[in-house]
Amino acid sequence: MAYSSQQETFHGIDAHTGERLEPGFSASTIDDVAAVCNAAAAAFDAYRSTDAEARASFLDAIGEEIMALGDALIERASRESGLPVARLTGERGRTVNQLKLFAQTVRDGAWLGIRIDPALPDRQPLPRPDLRMRKVALGPVAVFGASNFPLAFSTAGGDTAAALAAGCPVVVKGHPAHPGTDMMVADAIAKAAQRTGMPDGVFGHLRGPGNEIGAALVSDPRIAAVGFTGSRAGGLALVQLANARDVPIPVFAEMSSVNPVVLMPAALARRGAALGEAFVGSLTMGAGQFCTNPGLVLAIEGPGLDSFAAAAAEKLRQHAPQPMLTSGIRKAFAAGTASLAANASVTELAAGLEGDGVAREMARLFSTSGAEFLADQALAAEVFGASSLIVRCKDAQELATILESLEGQLTATLHLDDADSDAAKPLVPILERKAGRILANGWPTGVEVAHAMVHGGPFPATSDGRSTSVGTLAIERFLRPVCYQDLPEALLPPMLRNGAPEPRLVDGKPA
Amino acid sequence: MAYSSQQETFHGIDAHTGERLEPGFSASTIDDVAAVCNAAAAAFDAYRSTDAEARASFLDAIGEEIMALGDALIERASRESGLPVARLTGERGRTVNQLKLFAQTVRDGAWLGIRIDPALPDRQPLPRPDLRMRKVALGPVAVFGASNFPLAFSTAGGDTAAALAAGCPVVVKGHPAHPGTDMMVADAIAKAAQRTGMPDGVFGHLRGPGNEIGAALVSDPRIAAVGFTGSRAGGLALVQLANARDVPIPVFAEMSSVNPVVLMPAALARRGAALGEAFVGSLTMGAGQFCTNPGLVLAIEGPGLDSFAAAAAEKLRQHAPQPMLTSGIRKAFAAGTASLAANASVTELAAGLEGDGVAREMARLFSTSGAEFLADQALAAEVFGASSLIVRCKDAQELATILESLEGQLTATLHLDDADSDAAKPLVPILERKAGRILANGWPTGVEVAHAMVHGGPFPATSDGRSTSVGTLAIERFLRPVCYQDLPEALLPPMLRNGAPEPRLVDGKPA
Repeated sequence: MAYSSQQETFHGIDAHTGERLEPGFSASTIDDVAAVCNAAAAAFDAYRSTDAEARASFLDAIGEEIMALGDALIERASRESGLPVARLTGERGRTVNQLKLFAQTVRDGAWLGIRIDPALPDRQPLPRPDLRMRKVALGPVAVFGASNFPLAFSTAGGDTAAALAAGCPVVVKGHPAHPGTDMMVADAIAKAAQRTGMPDGVFGHLRGPGNEIGAALVSDPRIAAVGFTGSRAGGLALVQLANARDVPIPVFAEMSSVNPVVLMPAALARRGAALGEAFVGSLTMGAGQFCTNPGLVLAIEGPGLDSFAAAAAEKLRQHAPQPMLTSGIRKAFAAGTASLAANASVTELAAGLEGDGVAREMARLFSTSGAEFLADQALAAEVFGASSLIVRCKDAQELATILESLEGQLTATLHLDDADSDAAKPLVPILERKAGRILANGWPTGVEVAHAMVHGGPFPATSDGRSTSVGTLAIERFLRPVCYQDLPEALLPPMLRNGAPEPRLVDGKPA
Repeated sequence: MAYSSQQETFHGIDAHTGERLEPGFSASTIDDVAAVCNAAAAAFDAYRSTDAEARASFLDAIGEEIMALGDALIERASRESGLPVARLTGERGRTVNQLKLFAQTVRDGAWLGIRIDPALPDRQPLPRPDLRMRKVALGPVAVFGASNFPLAFSTAGGDTAAALAAGCPVVVKGHPAHPGTDMMVADAIAKAAQRTGMPDGVFGHLRGPGNEIGAALVSDPRIAAVGFTGSRAGGLALVQLANARDVPIPVFAEMSSVNPVVLMPAALARRGAALGEAFVGSLTMGAGQFCTNPGLVLAIEGPGLDSFAAAAAEKLRQHAPQPMLTSGIRKAFAAGTASLAANASVTELAAGLEGDGVAREMARLFSTSGAEFLADQALAAEVFGASSLIVRCKDAQELATILESLEGQLTATLHLDDADSDAAKPLVPILERKAGRILANGWPTGVEVAHAMVHGGPFPATSDGRSTSVGTLAIERFLRPVCYQDLPEALLPPMLRNGAPEPRLVDGKPA
């Protein structure tokens, strides 16, 4: 790993101590942005025309190079993020499996969306031409690393894997909270690209504090799409930059979600206390720093909800905090929870144990009534971290009204027993309109990397609810369809020729 | 058909005479916008949960009701648009077939994109939950009628058919250039909805001159997506309104394209004159008022191109004009062609016959050199109507440079013989980056409604190059994925239950 010795350097911060970590990293310049975007554009045609096996091998090789970094990667990531080694070891496994799954997706070929409508030369009144469609890569993609997943949503995370699988060169802007982790993974990707013979420029890497580099990246005319996971303000700023370009481009920003959890009456009556304990487990996992953290609990008031709240409060009071990712996140959490605590409509049910120094932020649990929640939009805002608000609804109608009032969400969860089924049924269409994923009897934290996963949802959960950032469907964000009409065989892409092995629809039917 | 007798009325104009057509139509008000959007939102859950057969029958019924309007529809459309009866009869057939094709698509069920990853309770280190994905409708869709296709891209056109197929209620803003046609088709849709038992509000209809009603429609919080075909300025204005909303929504605007046609050397040498004649046929069809009109011809200079240009000029000089759609379009065409004629870099090769009155605009053919084209961006702008510019390139390199310099296009066409194959090959990747459809040895006018069609393309051909406005893939613009995790069978949508007949991927494999 070559650490440049240019003038402007920046440092990671040890999340456990707040101290500066060595070495320093040279921040990228605006000239660097232009250079990597130029290289990405130059690599685009060569990279997107690599065959499936070559591209899949590249994705697999990235995973191998990440594993080859060994414990040093986990240790560095833990220091920079404050996340425990066990969690990061799991996150590394998930990151590598994600790359493998996209490699398999590329080999499978269904992502090409091939459709062939053969010529009908004798059709009346006009013949039909030969029409062949496939999806092609959009172009170089800018990916922003996320602070809360230094591996799975960062340099070689889901957006990078999906974009590379689609045939797009990728330019990563590493998250400044974990520059060492970012550099190690970037080097692993570069090694994999070289080892598998990918064109120069297929992967570009930028780093530095502040927003200037990222803004220049999104505004660069050679960038064709943007992937981002982070704050609502950050995501909206990128969307605005992308829309202001001469050629606007899609931004896939995952931003803000309170992930409502609905506790149905029969489930609450039978197992309110157990639900309360399990809830705190999900709420406090990773210091609550998950996009899918359960920040809002809705239930009809009564003894079941009382025992849920009592059990949750008791468990929370014993929760020892872990350091948060960055001082900025810590300050935002402190401000968000202070604002809730100061709200006259809100009661504080419990706080966790107080920690020391950078780990001082206690987990928090608040409560309010349905009427008060409906009267104050601020209560529906995300507080990133281990803070949640229980809303005591007076009846099923008020609960449904509150669900209807919510903004778009990544997830929505129902806890229910068989006896709740009839009451839950009318809630499902509401949740379908509000969320990308609907869970029953589970917790929203923990997002499976799978074919059927949707990690997305209506605005402001994401800036484009028509896609997902986790799972194999994510490849579609970086593709567009092209139709070839009557092209001679010699000019047709190989997978569109007669007899090619990739799956296809012929006249609309699988063939 | 009930013509309201409110105060503010507007009239269609006979495109053949410029005279006002009776009756007058009451313009919608801002209150009407809110009312139809409210009704559409109220109908949304009921409509999107109709079963495939019911929804398909509705689409088929719209086609039947349109046919039941008989000759009166064609006659009215011809008076309002100036388009010949034969063309409009063909366009009606296309419109009805389009509705039938979407009905078939709904019945087929592949559009649901169902994916199932069954639970793996014994997986280590963590069990996998049961994950089931389907696509759901976005919500009420606003559709703007297009002036140049009073049937196929208007009230019951492609966007309406695709959105209704997806399960979205539709609110149409009819094009003010053909209000009578619009009203007749809107009534046909309303009758079909009633006859097939669709919920009230599934189809809403607004009309009037000016932009106020359309702007209010796009800004209405109940609208979830917009379909538009028209000018670049009009499309960009809608995009801006949609982005400025509290909840931004996708706009699928088909806007601007010059549809470059590349004539390769061997083809030109062997059949330059024949190509020139055929080109003028495509250029002047429907007074050139097609989104896919061939407005730009690129070739390497030489005798082949000379004979192409001579044959095209000769044919064009005999072309008798037909009235254009509206006086606004006529004025824009006159201004655009006057600007080309006045450009010192441009030579006028030929003009068609001069017509009378509203039909006075002659078809025009211009020529310039490759170097001059590259030096003046204005030469690459669309002039809507029968005007085209031949660019004489000095060599293959200059031709490729010009292709690279172009904005996004709906189509790009190659005319080539076998001997041109090697020279054409390196152009294909450029065209793939620039256009939604690549044709060989044909003309871009005439867009087949098919599974493999792409009528779309990179900005500014459309505001979102990831989709198509023609063909069955168009249904995807109005859908988003939702994942159901561990939902009890009773709460799962029927098509996601085990044993349901709709096509699906199980663990990523067709099952």
